Amino acid sequence: MIITMKKNAPDSEMHAIIENLEGMGLKVTLIQGADYNVFGVVGDTTRVDEKLIAANPHVDHVARVAAPFKKANRLFHPQDTIVDVAGVKVGGQENVVVIGGPCSVEGEEPLLEIAKGVKEAGGAMLRGGAYKPRTSPYAFQGMGSEGILCMVKAREKYGLPIVSELMSESKLPEFEEYVDLIQVGARNMQNFDLLKALGKSTKPVLLKRGLSNTIEEWIMAAEYIMAGGNENVIMCERGIRTFEKYTRNTLDLSVIPILKEKTHLPIIIDPSHATGDSKLVESMSLAAIAAGADGLIIEVHNNPKCAWSDGAQSLTPPAFAQVIEKGRKIAQVIGRDI
Amino acid sequence: MIITMKKNAPDSEMHAIIENLEGMGLKVTLIQGADYNVFGVVGDTTRVDEKLIAANPHVDHVARVAAPFKKANRLFHPQDTIVDVAGVKVGGQENVVVIGGPCSVEGEEPLLEIAKGVKEAGGAMLRGGAYKPRTSPYAFQGMGSEGILCMVKAREKYGLPIVSELMSESKLPEFEEYVDLIQVGARNMQNFDLLKALGKSTKPVLLKRGLSNTIEEWIMAAEYIMAGGNENVIMCERGIRTFEKYTRNTLDLSVIPILKEKTHLPIIIDPSHATGDSKLVESMSLAAIAAGADGLIIEVHNNPKCAWSDGAQSLTPPAFAQVIEKGRKIAQVIGRDI
Amino acid sequence: MIITMKKNAPDSEMHAIIENLEGMGLKVTLIQGADYNVFGVVGDTTRVDEKLIAANPHVDHVARVAAPFKKANRLFHPQDTIVDVAGVKVGGQENVVVIGGPCSVEGEEPLLEIAKGVKEAGGAMLRGGAYKPRTSPYAFQGMGSEGILCMVKAREKYGLPIVSELMSESKLPEFEEYVDLIQVGARNMQNFDLLKALGKSTKPVLLKRGLSNTIEEWIMAAEYIMAGGNENVIMCERGIRTFEKYTRNTLDLSVIPILKEKTHLPIIIDPSHATGDSKLVESMSLAAIAAGADGLIIEVHNNPKCAWSDGAQSLTPPAFAQVIEKGRKIAQVIGRDI
Amino acid sequence: MIITMKKNAPDSEMHAIIENLEGMGLKVTLIQGADYNVFGVVGDTTRVDEKLIAANPHVDHVARVAAPFKKANRLFHPQDTIVDVAGVKVGGQENVVVIGGPCSVEGEEPLLEIAKGVKEAGGAMLRGGAYKPRTSPYAFQGMGSEGILCMVKAREKYGLPIVSELMSESKLPEFEEYVDLIQVGARNMQNFDLLKALGKSTKPVLLKRGLSNTIEEWIMAAEYIMAGGNENVIMCERGIRTFEKYTRNTLDLSVIPILKEKTHLPIIIDPSHATGDSKLVESMSLAAIAAGADGLIIEVHNNPKCAWSDGAQSLTPPAFAQVIEKGRKIAQVIGRDI
Repeated sequence: MIITMKKNAPDSEMHAIIENLEGMGLKVTLIQGADYNVFGVVGDTTRVDEKLIAANPHVDHVARVAAPFKKANRLFHPQDTIVDVAGVKVGGQENVVVIGGPCSVEGEEPLLEIAKGVKEAGGAMLRGGAYKPRTSPYAFQGMGSEGILCMVKAREKYGLPIVSELMSESKLPEFEEYVDLIQVGARNMQNFDLLKALGKSTKPVLLKRGLSNTIEEWIMAAEYIMAGGNENVIMCERGIRTFEKYTRNTLDLSVIPILKEKTHLPIIIDPSHATGDSKLVESMSLAAIAAGADGLIIEVHNNPKCAWSDGAQSLTPPAFAQVIEKGRKIAQVIGRDI
Repeated sequence: MIITMKKNAPDSEMHAIIENLEGMGLKVTLIQGADYNVFGVVGDTTRVDEKLIAANPHVDHVARVAAPFKKANRLFHPQDTIVDVAGVKVGGQENVVVIGGPCSVEGEEPLLEIAKGVKEAGGAMLRGGAYKPRTSPYAFQGMGSEGILCMVKAREKYGLPIVSELMSESKLPEFEEYVDLIQVGARNMQNFDLLKALGKSTKPVLLKRGLSNTIEEWIMAAEYIMAGGNENVIMCERGIRTFEKYTRNTLDLSVIPILKEKTHLPIIIDPSHATGDSKLVESMSLAAIAAGADGLIIEVHNNPKCAWSDGAQSLTPPAFAQVIEKGRKIAQVIGRDI
Repeated sequence: MIITMKKNAPDSEMHAIIENLEGMGLKVTLIQGADYNVFGVVGDTTRVDEKLIAANPHVDHVARVAAPFKKANRLFHPQDTIVDVAGVKVGGQENVVVIGGPCSVEGEEPLLEIAKGVKEAGGAMLRGGAYKPRTSPYAFQGMGSEGILCMVKAREKYGLPIVSELMSESKLPEFEEYVDLIQVGARNMQNFDLLKALGKSTKPVLLKRGLSNTIEEWIMAAEYIMAGGNENVIMCERGIRTFEKYTRNTLDLSVIPILKEKTHLPIIIDPSHATGDSKLVESMSLAAIAAGADGLIIEVHNNPKCAWSDGAQSLTPPAFAQVIEKGRKIAQVIGRDI
Repeated sequence: MIITMKKNAPDSEMHAIIENLEGMGLKVTLIQGADYNVFGVVGDTTRVDEKLIAANPHVDHVARVAAPFKKANRLFHPQDTIVDVAGVKVGGQENVVVIGGPCSVEGEEPLLEIAKGVKEAGGAMLRGGAYKPRTSPYAFQGMGSEGILCMVKAREKYGLPIVSELMSESKLPEFEEYVDLIQVGARNMQNFDLLKALGKSTKPVLLKRGLSNTIEEWIMAAEYIMAGGNENVIMCERGIRTFEKYTRNTLDLSVIPILKEKTHLPIIIDPSHATGDSKLVESMSLAAIAAGADGLIIEVHNNPKCAWSDGAQSLTPPAFAQVIEKGRKIAQVIGRDI
């Protein structure tokens, strides 16, 4: 941690800061310049609240050198974490995992048909939303518990682990009972009460990146879950909000090598929400695999134009099968498989 | 609503769409071009799910003409809403309301001292965080219920209505009992379960704009609360996330005239979180008042360098008093007061 | 300057860096931590190329403590620069200067009529585009030299100094002969050849902030002009590009106090381009004055609906007069005038 | 084009607009709603200035349905454009073209060494900056003409066509004489005088996307060059500016399928400037190829830690060779080659 003091900061203030930090077991070195004085602080600075230091009016700037996360940090946990989702392994050098399914569950019949398509195409898990975060209170809000039970039926029939989004701690018991991989949506990435509740769960968590959250904030959200005791976190990039409006969001594939360097957690890509456009899903899926993603989560619907939400970004089962087929060849080039 | 069909969309598809929309009581007009066919749809399109229409592969683009919100819409509710917060009126041509207080409640003694400063300076309400959304699980998470009770003490002593942030529906009963104005923080602006719970509350809600939410999404979040029956919503701009990193966020003051045109709700400005820098608070406060804001919410601490969070952006009570004094003169120029 | 070395950087590399920096007359201090080694570098680091240091694979991160600009730096030039534009003074505690005029010059007659309105309303200078940066090659590109001559006629008749945008070094002689304040548009803020050419000019320059340029990049663009010898630079904020699309750009008024702290240059605000909406111009103008702006540049047209470009954001002369009238009262509250 | 009129727009205004548009040979249809009236306009709207229409105070909103570009439009030019750069073909189903070389030319010796590495690795062209756009006036500005001559030497020796950035129209004759592919940098993407000058050149142009320019603005910049008569434009994505600061910019690979759909021009990717980090270049290169890019432009330096600019993002020749080797296998999976 580097603390830059303002010109003319009184010695008494500088000593107070030094004492305070040394009292926390940290080592402090002073660098004196003509216009600035700078402290270098070394040791375990994870628990130092940089805002508290920056609040001192004699402090110009505080910068972290060490990352503010520990549990998720590759530095302290060099081997890849492989998350086991009801038998499907995600991460490390395991096969690239492709998850498919509808944005919203719309009933048992249509879900089973889609699940069949996902299974036959080579999909490894089934996704489906039962509780839906919708911008408008007047839009379809999801089937709720009934939707979860449809997912369970599909799992029974096709043997695919199921993924669904949890929007409130109050539904966690239901998800712990029925769902194999609990998704935290982009809008709830910093719903800290939800993250804390998941920290006490034993189910693996799929943590989507928030619409405009930095990579560091995203890792810190994983750290919330891990600090609670649940280390089964899979990161999921789904596009960030930028000035560009041609796509719904801007897919940031550079997070794949970055997360692999900074953390030991698996990273999967959601090209459907990132682009909002089914025509772009295949090329972004192949790109993600080439860049080293551990998996994909893709919206699949057998009749996209009748989908109750997000049909515009859904693939039909044959298109989904084609992504897997081409993706497999890409995966093989970089030493993996699907 | 304008629906642009792709070139060569079959007539059968176009008729299916027309029938569907007419079945919802809407009026549809077709415009035929050489390269495109366009439908104009008029009537109450609030409940039309545009994603569902856009999902049709023959549809190129769907654009709303009418706003997707009703309860918050100035068009259907021309007079200003004035929200009564335990006797303090916010909105319309009422006085500009200045809310002050610490980011986090740190104990009864220090809070009472700050509350005294806020009261003497002419502040109209007291803010104070008891449950704190913090990026790091290792940072101070707030005093919880104890902090709420400190706020209650300060209200008893100084007669200031109290404002605090609610992070989870599970704490709503506590807030309904004790808090006068319930704040929804930026990170929870699209925590739809929380919004729905607040829709059933009778307490006024201070709805902060999300870090990267559009004005329309923000109004839709208000619409969630209002659709549930609670029309006492005060909007609060606190800066948006942009590429610029000199300030913590970029304060978007243009929302003041925009919200006044599109909605009938009061709008207040938070210059402390927007800038993250106490040196910028005064000028942004004066600017907000000049632009027509109904209020300000400002962080105040009597010893910012010892504040447990966000000290760098806190004003001392004398600096806060100076903002009110200068702000009052600006308010008088535009026909209001503080 | 703070240089963070990677864990396990060899001593030889660290010594090479130290020697190199000491050879430039800088003082280097080493801070050793368990996981990192950090150098603090003090002295005149303006000419150190941080990218060159960051290129060393053993270096983790380079951060500047001192600002990379000198000529524009308030630290080395504490008193306000007041720029004299053909007798109109801009900056310091001088009157707030309001510049009005059409986006594009459309002919002598209409320009004279607008100039009359600007003059009568109390405007201090006349703006008008003769060379227009247009997104489409098929849109009106401006009247060119003929437009400049219309501006000159208007100056002769109404005594207002004239402001116009220069798009290419090749036209600089024309501008030096005729124009009083040479505008660099947002799209050319980092057209470094243009900035260098202006550094050799004696005419004052109005430097607009680029669409997505940081405050530091903007000051560095001013530094280009000043390093060439021309210290008469007026900064102009005109909105930045963000995710929000309701306004054309997001007006960042916090730059007013920030530039006043970091530099000694005058700062004016362009609410017309920032918002793209005439309905928002008045409130943003008043906000800018309240925040301490040294001036405003506002689009004025006597028949906005027939304007050849940007009519949607133009005020009529009476609306412009009203902004000045209200703005004057705000200016007086903060100890200035218009 | 869809024109939404405000509620209560007088009939006379609506007729005036209709007459005006019909006078331009367009067909206008009126759709009447309770709260809005909407015009649908069909025909060649490329030359309609939407700002002029939006300026009418009775108009609420103007939206284009047809794209505002023609020459670059896939709709009017269905076959892929293949640009011939001194014998190297770019676009269509041609081989993926990999361009390598230093950010800045630093002298003949070092350039020849790098060129040798690029050639041996399988690179198809040599890049090298002679005129450098640098944020600071105190940073190295490039070798100028001397640098161009070094590039010519390298071409003579290794037979690689050369690519260099043009910053000012005044140097166009020099570039036309010596350079094979003239680069327009991100900062000059909307330097319209430069684009117009290039429209009259016969040399192919590499048009980088601006830091925060939309896809449409970028295509319109190509349209400027093409409208002038030069149809040899290669588009180059180099990352956009977002809130995320871990990478220098955010690489937007979705532009690959989007440009392929909307235009017929080749698209290449610059992973070096996009990420600013050599560790991320390989994975982003492979991703780009998998997504269908027609080429890559990569910074290569044989001693990155001594590079005069941007060393941190440069690959060594062996690392560059490895990217080509792996990239070739990815290309073969999707039916191309390198």
